[in-house]
Amino acid sequence: MTQSFKARPSIARMRGYVPGEQPRGGKFIKLNTNENPYPPSPAAIRAIEAAATQGLQRYPDPLATVFRERAADVFGIDPDWILCGNGSDDLLTIVTRTFVGEGECLRYPRPSYVLYSTLAEIQGAAAESVDFRPDWTLSPEFSSSSDNLRLGFLANPNSPSGTCLSPEEVLRLAERLPCPLLVDEAYVDFAETNCLDLVRQNERIMVSRSLSKSYALAGLRFGFLVAQPQVIVELSKVKDSYNCDALSIAGATAAIGDQAWLAENRRKILHTRSRLAEKLGSFGFQVTDSQANFVWATHDTASAHTLYERLKEKHILVRYMSYTGWQEGLRVSVGTDEQIDAFLHILQSLLPAT
Amino acid sequence: MTQSFKARPSIARMRGYVPGEQPRGGKFIKLNTNENPYPPSPAAIRAIEAAATQGLQRYPDPLATVFRERAADVFGIDPDWILCGNGSDDLLTIVTRTFVGEGECLRYPRPSYVLYSTLAEIQGAAAESVDFRPDWTLSPEFSSSSDNLRLGFLANPNSPSGTCLSPEEVLRLAERLPCPLLVDEAYVDFAETNCLDLVRQNERIMVSRSLSKSYALAGLRFGFLVAQPQVIVELSKVKDSYNCDALSIAGATAAIGDQAWLAENRRKILHTRSRLAEKLGSFGFQVTDSQANFVWATHDTASAHTLYERLKEKHILVRYMSYTGWQEGLRVSVGTDEQIDAFLHILQSLLPAT
Repeated sequence: MTQSFKARPSIARMRGYVPGEQPRGGKFIKLNTNENPYPPSPAAIRAIEAAATQGLQRYPDPLATVFRERAADVFGIDPDWILCGNGSDDLLTIVTRTFVGEGECLRYPRPSYVLYSTLAEIQGAAAESVDFRPDWTLSPEFSSSSDNLRLGFLANPNSPSGTCLSPEEVLRLAERLPCPLLVDEAYVDFAETNCLDLVRQNERIMVSRSLSKSYALAGLRFGFLVAQPQVIVELSKVKDSYNCDALSIAGATAAIGDQAWLAENRRKILHTRSRLAEKLGSFGFQVTDSQANFVWATHDTASAHTLYERLKEKHILVRYMSYTGWQEGLRVSVGTDEQIDAFLHILQSLLPAT
Repeated sequence: MTQSFKARPSIARMRGYVPGEQPRGGKFIKLNTNENPYPPSPAAIRAIEAAATQGLQRYPDPLATVFRERAADVFGIDPDWILCGNGSDDLLTIVTRTFVGEGECLRYPRPSYVLYSTLAEIQGAAAESVDFRPDWTLSPEFSSSSDNLRLGFLANPNSPSGTCLSPEEVLRLAERLPCPLLVDEAYVDFAETNCLDLVRQNERIMVSRSLSKSYALAGLRFGFLVAQPQVIVELSKVKDSYNCDALSIAGATAAIGDQAWLAENRRKILHTRSRLAEKLGSFGFQVTDSQANFVWATHDTASAHTLYERLKEKHILVRYMSYTGWQEGLRVSVGTDEQIDAFLHILQSLLPAT
């Protein structure tokens, strides 16, 4: 039977983005979607509990003003430089819809966050990827002119590599690009540098942040974007009016206000990350220096796909990734010390003795 | 200074949708955005409080499976006929992006929910409105063929009128329409009929529901859409992976499971609505028979805009609405009996003695 409804051709031919495995049953050690292994700040949980009994029958503030004021204090900027989103994916969607029309072009590096190409597809736009160099730097080709180019995405730190371009390098790329650049800083709280200051220097630079990873609030869906106010005005036209709910606004505001929690959590994650990277190295993996809450590990002889499957049988989930032209590898989220010890113990048993 | 960034032309020329006033300070009686005046089911609040301490560091279920299973039970359908959204606005956005490309056309009745035209604008599509007849029925013109027509929206019950087309009439319109029809049932729990059964009869009919009004959860942002599974597959490609957060999934699941709460809340709202309509009639207003949690009132001599402003000075917010070709009027949400008494008392003092 033929279908009598007709999705847009660009949608009908899509496969659709498949997020990382989220097992519902069974006891898994989840090291596959870069969640924080620790619970969020107790202040965030208290704020959510309080908000749950304070008028959920009313619509939330469309602008999430309390969050924007608190975040503005933390980052030393004005609240009208901030746009809040239902997770940073919502912000990436908003930015794409604001700048990229059908048949126009969106550019991003490869390998990187696969959602970027999905967003182009949904929009009926062309997705143009520029390969990273083997050392995970970007060639000037990333900034080259192109007739239909309307937007660039740059995950910094990048996934799966965990590598970071310096703010100077990002500024250089952005200034040559003939279109706005969204610097996706979902992992930046685990890095040594960030690009927030660049927003002041160039109105075509936007920075997005997520509370999913470093604030341990993936379940809450909250992210924010920093851009110059005249850019925020355009983006705001595209967002759903009430894109952030009352509970996430309350929780996110408390979380961003608890910078002591963030610092302590970061310290723990970075400590475990060092240990994980060092051990993987001693097992014969090449481990890229990570600025994120995961490491990217490749192996010259052991099959990454087989390791992924064997680990899964043992109820340990890591992310297997394979990109044409690149060596396949495992992206392993930094868990608690106990989780990482369990992972390393089983991984070692799956590798040929050296 | 000219801007060096360039939003899409359709975005740059937009004014942007302005949601109903949400005063932050001061003590207002809010009868302007059709919120439920009562707090939500205690079961929903308990579920949210429990979810707040159960792993917010992890991503939510992208498919909101527990909600879909519970709702499927309530409505006697299969879970794969249900798509969940971050409020029903999110679902309207998803449906628009799935079916309507740039330069194509979206049709809806007028006056109705103003977001429909905003969604067309964002998409760079044409918005084609068909006026309601004076008795709030729709002429066959609504179903007429048109080359580029890709989607119809129909709010049923409609706002601001509060009127409902019968399921038979909706089916007749849908079967003649050359494209899918989204029946927006945000207010349907306050009505006598609904169109859920039509989804089985025609794959081009979709029904959206909201938990904002009848479940008193506007602050939570949760809605759902019912369509045939092959339609849900296409819509799912367009939604953000994690569009619903863990707290809203928990709260919405408990709320939809508490049908006794819904029945009791509906009983109270309908009782107050009758009283409100009758009093407004006795004050000289024409009040349209409402199937929603608000009433639409016009007055032949008193200025609706003046009344709106005077009421606002007294800290009572109602919605003033004026559509070219239609008589201006006030849309008044059904509050608690106490709120409605206060509103009526002040309103009467603002009208010339009769």
